Amino acid sequence: MTRIGFLGPHATFTEQALLSLPESEGAELVPLPGNPAVLAAVREGTVDAGCVPIENSVEGAVPPVLDGLVLDPPLVITREALVGVRFVLVGRPGTALAAVRTVASHGHGIAQTRGWIAAHLPQAEVLVSTSTSEAAAQVARGEMDAAACSPLAAAQHGLEILADDIADNPGAVTRFVLVAAPGRVPAPTGHDRTTLALTTENRPGSLLGLLTELAVRGIDLTRIESRPIKDRHNDYWFHLDCSGHVADPAMGEALAALHRRADRVRFLGSFPRAAGAAGPATGAGDGTVPPRGASSAAYRAAEHWLADVRNGVQV
Amino acid sequence: MTRIGFLGPHATFTEQALLSLPESEGAELVPLPGNPAVLAAVREGTVDAGCVPIENSVEGAVPPVLDGLVLDPPLVITREALVGVRFVLVGRPGTALAAVRTVASHGHGIAQTRGWIAAHLPQAEVLVSTSTSEAAAQVARGEMDAAACSPLAAAQHGLEILADDIADNPGAVTRFVLVAAPGRVPAPTGHDRTTLALTTENRPGSLLGLLTELAVRGIDLTRIESRPIKDRHNDYWFHLDCSGHVADPAMGEALAALHRRADRVRFLGSFPRAAGAAGPATGAGDGTVPPRGASSAAYRAAEHWLADVRNGVQV
Amino acid sequence: MTRIGFLGPHATFTEQALLSLPESEGAELVPLPGNPAVLAAVREGTVDAGCVPIENSVEGAVPPVLDGLVLDPPLVITREALVGVRFVLVGRPGTALAAVRTVASHGHGIAQTRGWIAAHLPQAEVLVSTSTSEAAAQVARGEMDAAACSPLAAAQHGLEILADDIADNPGAVTRFVLVAAPGRVPAPTGHDRTTLALTTENRPGSLLGLLTELAVRGIDLTRIESRPIKDRHNDYWFHLDCSGHVADPAMGEALAALHRRADRVRFLGSFPRAAGAAGPATGAGDGTVPPRGASSAAYRAAEHWLADVRNGVQV
Amino acid sequence: MTRIGFLGPHATFTEQALLSLPESEGAELVPLPGNPAVLAAVREGTVDAGCVPIENSVEGAVPPVLDGLVLDPPLVITREALVGVRFVLVGRPGTALAAVRTVASHGHGIAQTRGWIAAHLPQAEVLVSTSTSEAAAQVARGEMDAAACSPLAAAQHGLEILADDIADNPGAVTRFVLVAAPGRVPAPTGHDRTTLALTTENRPGSLLGLLTELAVRGIDLTRIESRPIKDRHNDYWFHLDCSGHVADPAMGEALAALHRRADRVRFLGSFPRAAGAAGPATGAGDGTVPPRGASSAAYRAAEHWLADVRNGVQV
Repeated sequence: MTRIGFLGPHATFTEQALLSLPESEGAELVPLPGNPAVLAAVREGTVDAGCVPIENSVEGAVPPVLDGLVLDPPLVITREALVGVRFVLVGRPGTALAAVRTVASHGHGIAQTRGWIAAHLPQAEVLVSTSTSEAAAQVARGEMDAAACSPLAAAQHGLEILADDIADNPGAVTRFVLVAAPGRVPAPTGHDRTTLALTTENRPGSLLGLLTELAVRGIDLTRIESRPIKDRHNDYWFHLDCSGHVADPAMGEALAALHRRADRVRFLGSFPRAAGAAGPATGAGDGTVPPRGASSAAYRAAEHWLADVRNGVQV
Repeated sequence: MTRIGFLGPHATFTEQALLSLPESEGAELVPLPGNPAVLAAVREGTVDAGCVPIENSVEGAVPPVLDGLVLDPPLVITREALVGVRFVLVGRPGTALAAVRTVASHGHGIAQTRGWIAAHLPQAEVLVSTSTSEAAAQVARGEMDAAACSPLAAAQHGLEILADDIADNPGAVTRFVLVAAPGRVPAPTGHDRTTLALTTENRPGSLLGLLTELAVRGIDLTRIESRPIKDRHNDYWFHLDCSGHVADPAMGEALAALHRRADRVRFLGSFPRAAGAAGPATGAGDGTVPPRGASSAAYRAAEHWLADVRNGVQV
Repeated sequence: MTRIGFLGPHATFTEQALLSLPESEGAELVPLPGNPAVLAAVREGTVDAGCVPIENSVEGAVPPVLDGLVLDPPLVITREALVGVRFVLVGRPGTALAAVRTVASHGHGIAQTRGWIAAHLPQAEVLVSTSTSEAAAQVARGEMDAAACSPLAAAQHGLEILADDIADNPGAVTRFVLVAAPGRVPAPTGHDRTTLALTTENRPGSLLGLLTELAVRGIDLTRIESRPIKDRHNDYWFHLDCSGHVADPAMGEALAALHRRADRVRFLGSFPRAAGAAGPATGAGDGTVPPRGASSAAYRAAEHWLADVRNGVQV
Repeated sequence: MTRIGFLGPHATFTEQALLSLPESEGAELVPLPGNPAVLAAVREGTVDAGCVPIENSVEGAVPPVLDGLVLDPPLVITREALVGVRFVLVGRPGTALAAVRTVASHGHGIAQTRGWIAAHLPQAEVLVSTSTSEAAAQVARGEMDAAACSPLAAAQHGLEILADDIADNPGAVTRFVLVAAPGRVPAPTGHDRTTLALTTENRPGSLLGLLTELAVRGIDLTRIESRPIKDRHNDYWFHLDCSGHVADPAMGEALAALHRRADRVRFLGSFPRAAGAAGPATGAGDGTVPPRGASSAAYRAAEHWLADVRNGVQV
């Protein structure tokens, strides 16, 4: 049976995201004590895959996950899911809001409900739990008065929703990814994303040179973020999300070019873009026209022409 | 008397950073209840400037600060400071490590000491405070057993250092900036940074086009990060740090070009680069050669030549 | 009275082109013994301007004119004219085609009628004259049987047209330019051309770097040609025709950038594009949309914004 | 026996260039009545190859040759030769310079000796011959007094050199090429040139886009020239000479990219660069460093890496 790790215990937002993925069907879902622990378990092979948050539209990228993805040995992303994060304040049945003295949540949960808690529970102590679900468990065990968590955690622990939609930014969406050891790359769907990380020399124009390799081949960039490289003064990993799939000729040629030109390049996966995710072609009729010559057919025609030319044939 | 806001109470890492800046001399330092509150106070004019963290080499950019900087009305950065973040675990005098049941810190402090606490205080409850200094105050008041905070906070509250250097990544450095309403731009020093944010259409090559405007003028990019724009699906603010000063002809021309070409561009300040900060020319002998023609002298010579040509004079 | 030099004697194609220009009205037209002589006379001031061919759609650029334009002291182009070159074969009245034993013309005229002469006058000797008009004069004086020249020359010398439209490529058009010492640049008309010559280091990408300076500012290139630099092994002058006028902000900024970046740049004039000449906006309704931000209004707005930013003002 | 066509009759500069090529050994050299005739004979297969001038450092490109190369069916260049063009004035033995009344040469020969003839033979008639060698033959037959031709033609026709080195620009060098039907491409030597012609849409930046495809792959451009396309208003063939060979991975990828992106691209051959010819690596120690990642080894390594990535392998 496939085993998939996630930030436990059960009923975290991560588990909720994981349950939305087809891979979770029939799989054993293995709660683990943190996102770095999830990546480590995948690397060690104690799970077949892991589900981690990679981008949160309020908090931005999840730094330890980004930093963890470029460690060795390599990992790749095989799937993504977008989860609208709905926070509820939960307590044991019968709890009055006015009686809440302690509130627990995960650090990101606290960050996203800070304003609501300050406004409605100004006297309450706020405590960090290892996950939003663990916070709910603490409430169920009587250790805390209330928790900011997912509706799933409320249900699982038999808690009452004291207040709904308490996120300061109600439209917050988190992007979760399924991570595995390198293996078969998911087949192209025509609406794919490729995730990369690369480093370059710190001199004027070097990042531009790398981005030009994408642009001349008609590849769009949907996210870019620089992350300092541990122990290397002033050097960065650039984390990029691009439109397209490694099996596309344009993307393949671009990746090979980056391999030649960058100090290091890490392929972090090609996978179907989640519905609603950033990208130039998330649906029909979006008007995106591939740049002239970026299509696979154009690449094939050019390859044939080049082979002919090299063989001394021109027609 | 100049008033400068910062994340309070006294003795936070932010105050420690602020005290390292010449602007703090003779100024009234005003503790405020959060980084958004600091930016708001500057905008409202209740303080003359504010000190906020903008980049942490472990946690990456500080998202609410980045997002807050592009709100209206405009703010600009006038100074930066790099602070090596040394966390200590403090308790009331005589506290034994084994007796610690509760530990408090700010969310970022908890994130940066999580590994150490898990290893050495596995049974302790971890509680979120509004700042590392407030956590120390809670210890001093007897509400918590221990706090992860700065040495300054330990001293200020008469607490004992139970364990030193407890950050999981001991080389962590945070970059703080001083923010003010637009006004006189700090004079160029020859080792300056210019910070920008800009948005562009979401189509292939549009970001590249903007970066080309910097590259053709020899301007180096030292940081880039995309942040989703609230309420605009799939659109981003790109936050850039560049080498150079708005008073430089090359930077001026590049900014004007970005103004013509980007959807929106926000100038976020030109200021001296902190010693040790990322940049191509942080010290002598670093071998950085300005690209041909990027010098101010070359710009002046070209301007004179162009004026002559337009006046019908060529020699 | 203004004096304008041209390749004489009277009735050459160059005089015909010159007569189509408003500058010829009321001017003294001075025949000179060659195109280099015309440029020299302008440089020496013995004429106020000179008319020379610069591009022929059959024969390509006129090398001695291109090479002569980059000599010292500088010259600039103030006007261009396109002349459809209609060659006629002329003889003394009563001459039968079959009786033609000798044909004269200018070297370019011979080149453009070679096929016709080979087909219709296979036995005739072909002699080079210093101009097509001089060839007609030779016929009038009885020194030659026939000449390939302009209809104007036929009329002037009282000759009979033995055969009309004898050019091998009947659509051939020659571009002539009026050249003068630097002085007042012709006012922009909105449909202007700017002509440049520049040299660069001979290393990969150096020409591309220069062309990028045009492209980022939305300036189109309508002609490019490399000409070896006399006495410099493997170095070239690049002759460029661009859309736009030196008074345009975009062109001015681009020229200044080329001045900073090229080894040498020679401004050869901004002047109205002739009707029918190559260019992206030769007429109304041609669908040319200036690239975003390339308009003069966008430049002005950006300049004002930059001045505000430098003065500490943002709104 | 291999048959190679050239501009006849024997003893033209073109034959002299052809004799410097190894291909001429043991071949039948076939004089033909013009450069277009040479290209036509190769196309029709009446000769196996043809030798034509393609660039003259004084006169620039040879327009009919450039225009002829892009006609159908395709032709390719397999070899180049640089010939220093030394013009002599020849006459029948015993001829006095003062007695010369008529001088013949090819049109390009006349163009290159015009100054000398004007200075030394001001009264002489100048007649166009179909080649410099034919001009010498005319002198031998007594039809002309003198000819401007090659020393080889003087010797062949038993003529006397009346004046040596009469070219106005004594360092003039002409580049000749050997042209054949497409077939086996000459093997790479490490110092090769690739010649191309391509057309593009007439819109801003389209030429730049094509040149970028070369530049990102580290390919140098040694010559560029625009030639109007017959019957297409304002459209051009761009003739390019590049460093490198079609068998190089970088050049192959660049050609394929141009094939995708240009309206039309014509591969005109990869062949060894002649000693002394323009190019970034004409000899040892010229300091040319291939751009990072442009080497064939880097291409192979990147191909292997990409194949691994596509197969789900990363190490």
